[in-house]
Amino acid sequence: MTAPDTDEKYMMLALELAEKARGKVEPNPMVGAVLIKNGEIIGKGYHQIFGGAHAEIHAINEGGENCKGSTLYISMEPCAHYGKTAPCVDAIIKAGITKVIIPIIDPNPVTSGKGMQKLKEAGIEVRLGVMESQAKKLNAPFFKLMQTGLPYIIVKWAMSLDGKIATHGGDSRWITSEESRAYVHKIRGWMDGIVVGINTVIRDDPLLTCRLKGGRNPRRIIVDGNAILPLSSRLIKTISECEIIVAVTMNAPQERIERLKQVGCKIIQTKDISGRVDLHDFFRYLGEMKLTNILVEGGSRIITSMIEGHLADKIIVFIAPVIIGGEGALPPVLGKGVDMMCRAVKLREISIKRFLNDTAIEGVPEYGFYA
Amino acid sequence: MTAPDTDEKYMMLALELAEKARGKVEPNPMVGAVLIKNGEIIGKGYHQIFGGAHAEIHAINEGGENCKGSTLYISMEPCAHYGKTAPCVDAIIKAGITKVIIPIIDPNPVTSGKGMQKLKEAGIEVRLGVMESQAKKLNAPFFKLMQTGLPYIIVKWAMSLDGKIATHGGDSRWITSEESRAYVHKIRGWMDGIVVGINTVIRDDPLLTCRLKGGRNPRRIIVDGNAILPLSSRLIKTISECEIIVAVTMNAPQERIERLKQVGCKIIQTKDISGRVDLHDFFRYLGEMKLTNILVEGGSRIITSMIEGHLADKIIVFIAPVIIGGEGALPPVLGKGVDMMCRAVKLREISIKRFLNDTAIEGVPEYGFYA
Repeated sequence: MTAPDTDEKYMMLALELAEKARGKVEPNPMVGAVLIKNGEIIGKGYHQIFGGAHAEIHAINEGGENCKGSTLYISMEPCAHYGKTAPCVDAIIKAGITKVIIPIIDPNPVTSGKGMQKLKEAGIEVRLGVMESQAKKLNAPFFKLMQTGLPYIIVKWAMSLDGKIATHGGDSRWITSEESRAYVHKIRGWMDGIVVGINTVIRDDPLLTCRLKGGRNPRRIIVDGNAILPLSSRLIKTISECEIIVAVTMNAPQERIERLKQVGCKIIQTKDISGRVDLHDFFRYLGEMKLTNILVEGGSRIITSMIEGHLADKIIVFIAPVIIGGEGALPPVLGKGVDMMCRAVKLREISIKRFLNDTAIEGVPEYGFYA
Repeated sequence: MTAPDTDEKYMMLALELAEKARGKVEPNPMVGAVLIKNGEIIGKGYHQIFGGAHAEIHAINEGGENCKGSTLYISMEPCAHYGKTAPCVDAIIKAGITKVIIPIIDPNPVTSGKGMQKLKEAGIEVRLGVMESQAKKLNAPFFKLMQTGLPYIIVKWAMSLDGKIATHGGDSRWITSEESRAYVHKIRGWMDGIVVGINTVIRDDPLLTCRLKGGRNPRRIIVDGNAILPLSSRLIKTISECEIIVAVTMNAPQERIERLKQVGCKIIQTKDISGRVDLHDFFRYLGEMKLTNILVEGGSRIITSMIEGHLADKIIVFIAPVIIGGEGALPPVLGKGVDMMCRAVKLREISIKRFLNDTAIEGVPEYGFYA
């Protein structure tokens, strides 16, 4: 029997391969596979693009005749159902692979557990649980969508060293450096949707596209309770380049909704909470649309709702070495806030990155989804 | 002649030696010295403690008879006056040193330029300007005090990831981790004085001592326009351990001032600016008392005055990965603030440190004293 540390070594490789597909396969999970025979890698692969071949098929194709008697390391249970491609378990059995190592069962109810079952029935030895937590973390958004029906939500803001996201006059261009903003565009390229509040649209008239070469444009999603999104905005002017979804309340005036539909916006209607969009409703709709990764970019009002509603799975804060000051300058989080430090929302798994002179602090709220 | 890179190499060593005295020699500058003969170090030293021997004397003593014909690298012009010790230039001449390399003239008017003059008159070759900017930066507080009569002022605050220094209920214990707070105590140990506003004293009842083993206790200085510092505060209770200076206005009630004097507080009286201490006056007094390094620790009101008055030479911000939220929670900087981003105060020479899960961002405001 292979020693556990060897299994972990190859599983690590499978996870690294999987990671290459970030932003390219959603709503599918990122999956990597490694084929080992006599201590040598005879095939590897990863799920490269939504609709394309799965990781194990790439590995099996590379292994060819050699697959017979080999061990397959794959970062998630292989599928047992017809989706965009044929079931991978059939290919594994056909290839003559004799052992399969996986960290976790596929949470997708269509196939969950069935892949493993089918492999066992075919007499293949299956080991489950190798690097389970790492594999779950890698695909946390996929797990969250499968287990809760909600997308994985990252909340991001950029602020000055004194905690302001705009001056008292509303100016926020630019708080952070070009280097920080380039990283934000990279993150956008991994997302299925970017959410901003209508106030941010009116104040900043943003494009919300990913401006990195080769970067995917996420859907642009505006939380706009009363459907007041201006047709003159840069968002609407660029609607042919990239989809726009507008979330309005049930009570938003019908003629304004029609006006947005006519220029091509997709409309989501949620419950009305004092004239504002019900965010729980809103994210449930996004989940139904199979959006896996959502980036909420502000402003203060929507960030506050995200924090108060315990809706953020990850928070990323960019801090620039500038002082704005001012009682009237917007902080990132408003609302009531906590009264005692022991009640403050604590973040875990902190990562601190430097972008020229800016700092980006990233963490997972203790209440966040953490598969 | 020695190549410039060799001169820089030995001057760097002298600067590193000087740095060892941080927090131990103020109001004197930190100075290091290296003696070189035939490409070998024959002596080195630094000014170790206020009132003790200067750097070059340590180096000369180590060099002994060997000093004849050697080159002395010293991180500031040697003194030519009797202070706590005899003039170093006399010792240099007597030792038979033939060349002296210095980065900068001593800004102290008592001796400035005279040391160099006396060396030249004795036939010693002098090279001025090697690593000048590094040498000035090392002793920026000393240069500031000598050139402006004001102490070098560091402003520090600790805030949450959403830019709050306390909850809406006033709780701030503790925003940052023990590791961050240990570093603050280390900084305190380098300071001649710590300044806080009276509101912070009333809210937090702090001790303001350096709680690191062997750390020097800086003077504790309270900005308290109306002389309301409670006799029941922990500050007053520990006055025997460490001096307390209270800055009040000219209009503070005499009986309250007397009450503070009676328990041993030193009183500074400044101009009255709408019931508040005039900070320019205040720092001028601290400069006259030869306080070189001052740490301003808050709260919002005094930090705001420091930012608005362009009084901070360095800013250090500790950021903890917690979210406090709340419109009523205190941000570090209040006041009017800037209207446009182009008018925000920019920091230079950014350093980013990590303390467990906290981040400390340090920088020099573009208007700051930078010798």
